[in-house]
Parts: sequence; C-alpha cells; structure tokens
Amino acid sequence: MPSFSIGVDLGGTNLRIAAVDAEGNLLQKLTVGAQISRGRDHVIAEMCSAIQSVAGGFQSKYSLTGVGIGVPGIIEKKTGRVIKSPNLPDWLNYPVKEEIERRLKSVVILENDANSAALGEYWLGAARDADAMIIITLGTGVGGGIVMNGDIWDGMTGMAGEFGHINIEPEGHPCNCGSRGCAEQLASATAIVRMAKEIIAGGKAEALAKAAKRDLEFTAKSVFNLALQGDQAAQAIFDKVGWALGILLSDLVNSFNFPIYVVGGGVASAWQAFAPALFKEVHTRSMVYAATAPPIAHETEGAATTPKQSQSLARTTTITRALLGSDAGLFGAARLPALRANRV
Amino acid sequence: MPSFSIGVDLGGTNLRIAAVDAEGNLLQKLTVGAQISRGRDHVIAEMCSAIQSVAGGFQSKYSLTGVGIGVPGIIEKKTGRVIKSPNLPDWLNYPVKEEIERRLKSVVILENDANSAALGEYWLGAARDADAMIIITLGTGVGGGIVMNGDIWDGMTGMAGEFGHINIEPEGHPCNCGSRGCAEQLASATAIVRMAKEIIAGGKAEALAKAAKRDLEFTAKSVFNLALQGDQAAQAIFDKVGWALGILLSDLVNSFNFPIYVVGGGVASAWQAFAPALFKEVHTRSMVYAATAPPIAHETEGAATTPKQSQSLARTTTITRALLGSDAGLFGAARLPALRANRV
Repeated sequence: MPSFSIGVDLGGTNLRIAAVDAEGNLLQKLTVGAQISRGRDHVIAEMCSAIQSVAGGFQSKYSLTGVGIGVPGIIEKKTGRVIKSPNLPDWLNYPVKEEIERRLKSVVILENDANSAALGEYWLGAARDADAMIIITLGTGVGGGIVMNGDIWDGMTGMAGEFGHINIEPEGHPCNCGSRGCAEQLASATAIVRMAKEIIAGGKAEALAKAAKRDLEFTAKSVFNLALQGDQAAQAIFDKVGWALGILLSDLVNSFNFPIYVVGGGVASAWQAFAPALFKEVHTRSMVYAATAPPIAHETEGAATTPKQSQSLARTTTITRALLGSDAGLFGAARLPALRANRV
Repeated sequence: MPSFSIGVDLGGTNLRIAAVDAEGNLLQKLTVGAQISRGRDHVIAEMCSAIQSVAGGFQSKYSLTGVGIGVPGIIEKKTGRVIKSPNLPDWLNYPVKEEIERRLKSVVILENDANSAALGEYWLGAARDADAMIIITLGTGVGGGIVMNGDIWDGMTGMAGEFGHINIEPEGHPCNCGSRGCAEQLASATAIVRMAKEIIAGGKAEALAKAAKRDLEFTAKSVFNLALQGDQAAQAIFDKVGWALGILLSDLVNSFNFPIYVVGGGVASAWQAFAPALFKEVHTRSMVYAATAPPIAHETEGAATTPKQSQSLARTTTITRALLGSDAGLFGAARLPALRANRV
C-alpha cells in the first residue's frame, strides 16, 4: 500500500491542510478559517477535525505516515514544544503535539512555519537538487530557514536562521527585536510600505502619494505596481530592498558557502524590481560568491536550476526565487513525518 | 600500544610541529623557520624532515595515527588540495597531500589554518564541552571557523566561515575583498593601527601620536597598552572594535544559534578593552542572545565554562575568548588524522 502524509499550515488567517503522497504529489488541499483568536483548544479541535476529514478520504488506499504542522513560532525539535510564539501565546507550556497525537492516533511533528517552507522548497521546489540550502522569506517580517544533511538545521534552541535580524545599517530604523537597521526593516512588506510613506512625506513622490490616497489598502504590491510602470520613486524603494538583500545574502554566502539561497514569501513576487540591485551588491560584497557565481543568465532569470543544469553547475552558488509560493510550507510540513518519525 | 599524531602549523614566519597523544597531551613541540619564499619543494622537504625527526622519537612506544597540517589557504576537503592561497601560490594544482604521504608513508590531512585553530579550541580549549562552536580569529585579518557534528564544517567549496567579511558598515572602509566596512576593517590588528593613525592625523590623540613616534613598531598592542593606561582615544578605538564584533556576533548568534562563540587570535589579548562594548551590542542586537544569555559573570570573565558549569548552563549562548593561544592550530591539526583518516 502506498503511503501519504498530511501537511498543515497554520497561518494568521487560514488553516490549510494538504494530503500529499510520498513522492510529493498533491492528493487534496483544504483551506478553512484559522480563528486563532478563539484560542488554542478551539484551533486544535478544528484542526483535528479538518485533518480527519481530509485523511479519511485516502486511508482505504494509502497508509498514513503522519501529520506535519507548520506553526508561526519557535519549536524545540527534541520535545516538539512551542517555546515562543507571539501569535499563539496559549500554545506555550502545553503538550500540543501529544494532544493532537492522542486525538488523531497518528505521529504528529510540529515545526516552525518558515522552516516548513524551507523544507518544501528543498523537497520539491527551487532547491530540489541541492544538498544544502537557505531560504529567506520576505513577508510581513523577514524569516529564514536552513536545510542541511537532509533536514532543517535549527540550532541549540530552535532559533537558528533568524536572518531578518542580520544587521544591515547599524544606525538604521529601529526594529522590534531591540536592534536597529535589521534586514527586516529594509526588505519586508512592512518596510516597503514604511519607506514609501517616508518618501511621500518628503513630498517628492507624486505617483506614490496618489496611490496611497487611492488604494484602500496601500501595500507593498501597490509600490511594486508603480515600479513596474516605471515610477522612479517606487523603483528606488526596491533598489533599497535589493541593496539590503544583497548585503544580507553576501553575509550568508560568506558564512555558509551553501550551493543555493532561495528568496521566498510574498515580496519575492517583486523579484524583477529588486534582483538587479541584489546581484550588484552580492558580486562586489561577497568574495565567496564572486568565486562561485553561476553564468549571468541564472541571475537575471531568477529561475531555479533544472536537474540537468544543476549538475553542470556543481560548485556554483545559486541565488534564486522560491518556486512553490504559499504552498511551500504546506508541502514541507507534509514531508516532516517521513523525515523524522523514526528519528524522534 | 598508545597512539599519537603529528600536528603541523605552517605560518608565514614559523613552521611548528607537535607530537600529541590521543588524549591531547603534548609530547613534544618543535619550531623551525618556515622559509616559504624558498618555494614549495623546499618547504615540503624541510617539513617532512622535521616531522620525521619529531615522530621518530616516539615511534618505539606509540603508533602514529597520521599527520595533520594547517596551512594558510582554502583546502578542498574531498581531495585535500589547496584551492586558494595568496601566500602559497605554488601549492595550487599540486598533489601536496600525496607527495607528503609518499615521503612519510603516513596518512596526511591538510586543513585551513583557521579551521585547525577552531578544531583545537573545540577539542581541548574554550569549546571543549560544546557540541557545536564558531571561532572568530582576530589577527592581521579576521578569519573564522565552524565546528559542528564533531568536525569542521566548511561548506561547498571550503569557503564557509569567512566571518571577517560579514558586513558591519555598508559604506565603511574599503576592504581587499571588494566590499566596504567588513568586520576585518574594524576588528583586525591592521584595522586597529589604521584607526589609530586616522585619529592621530585628526590631531586629537596626543598619547597615541607620541607612541606612534616612539615605538619603532607601532602595533595594535601599542594601542592596547595605552587603553590599559586609561587613554581615552585608545579606548575609543577598542570601543569601536567591540561595537563591530558585537554586531558580527549578533549576526552569527541570530543565524547559527550555537552554544558557544570563541574569539581568538592575537587581538583577543585585548579582550578586557573591547569586551564591554561587544556585550552591550550583543544584548541589544541579538534577540537570540537575549533569550539565551548566561549569567553576567560569564561575560565579564570571558572565561570558558568548566565541564561542570557547562552542564548547568545548558541552552545558554556563551561568547568567550580562546584558551589555547597560538597553539590552537597546532593541536587542531594534530586532531585531524584521528578525526578523518577513516572517513576520507
């Protein structure tokens, strides 16, 4: 009997559930409201019921390997406990994993959501042919994940890969973490909107000011759309984003010397607006990248290497955009049971 | 019969050779001139003859596990080849390892010198009780090394751990690597002398100016001595060094989440002058450090944890100075044969 697993992505808005077979083929996907505000017990009950309804449809033909759940928080790998999560305060000091295992009678693995996304891109996405990878996730904040030796590498207390807080400008914009000028303050969707508002306040960005007035929700996407239309003020913001990401990636390439670095999250959709500035910085600031850069076409395309290409590109450093979009975390979570069930 | 190994540290000035037993006890140490300028064949001949003379004294009572050699260059782990070395240009594209093995009839392992030092501190020094560690070496330049899973982790092409080129000030002093404001431009012995000369040129540092005139060799140590005597201009330079190292370490702690980070190299002797500024930055700039900082006493002492302490400090992040001084590379090199002989 072939096997399948369930991947769960618990976001701030939606709870998404996927049934995925052992080769990574999607069997079914379900999205329901997350309703995190109704508290832990409600979310766990809803999640278990949704998982059972999805899994139930396949258990006559497939055996269930287990359930992987990506959550927005820091998970301690050894115990599976949530040890930090601003969005899920009542999940701390509670045996979430054991409770869900008890209800589902199945192996359950919890993992940080950014790490799940990393694992998804590693298993089936942009880094599927690499033996080690780093992902930088550009969303409301900037997150990160490290995969090496076939699994997430998350450090002593599950906190490795906090690339959003790598320093870019020592005296830059204050960050929630207590520092200033973190990557997150220059390359997140939040930072893009903030920088746009700063420029608008300076009175030198007519089109941005108009858009900010017109759009009910003035977002990073509004700024990107203007940049696409050739607006220089909007493009200058993405030049700054690319500059910051270029410095961040130079730091990472110089530290890790990995074969591939993947840029994901919603802001990665603006790849064409920020990638030129990014690669300009990486070429001058990382001697390791300079020594291992792939042909220029790979940079401008921002496309992941195909299996064939990656063989001819052995020992090159690839920086590219993610391929799976918002499904990365879902697929990565589905990969967790097969990866860890026998190790834990 | 107990076993021993030979560690070799090939420096710019000296070639140092040690016989070390399997527990890390020093049996004998020999220092001879390196004479790198006389070329590869001369150095290899001298090295082999010195190794044979040291090893010969112990081979009646001990069995030789092999020879580890730390060299100033990038080594490809798989092949043992020197793939980059400004100081040893004629060692590239030459089977150094095979040639030395042929002469000595023993296993020979080559490794980068900073990585050998990391391994020494991991085996017998400041990180001897840790399961993963990072070393930052502050010398003429700033180097680094990563140890995890019991061995050096040096990336895809042996270039991981180039922490001297982590960016601190994006528009800072130009670096030889092509970037600006690298850690090496703010925390190396070279940078300390440069910053002192800049301050002297500004005309506001009387004691520094006097020392620069008086000392035939005006070095980072001269600046440190003045800082020790309470000279404010000299202390301000070490405050800047500590600030830069604090940002560098925050980046590393946020990225790696390792239990211990060791600061070594000649400039580490000035620990008391730069450590306060370093810890001030790390506390505010690294949320991962803030969440895992050890008791304050550990910071001010800069002393490595003892085995007993380290157990009570499980899950804390220790930043401390190296313990083995210039012998770290020698001991680390001696550790290589036992670590890798059976893996390669």
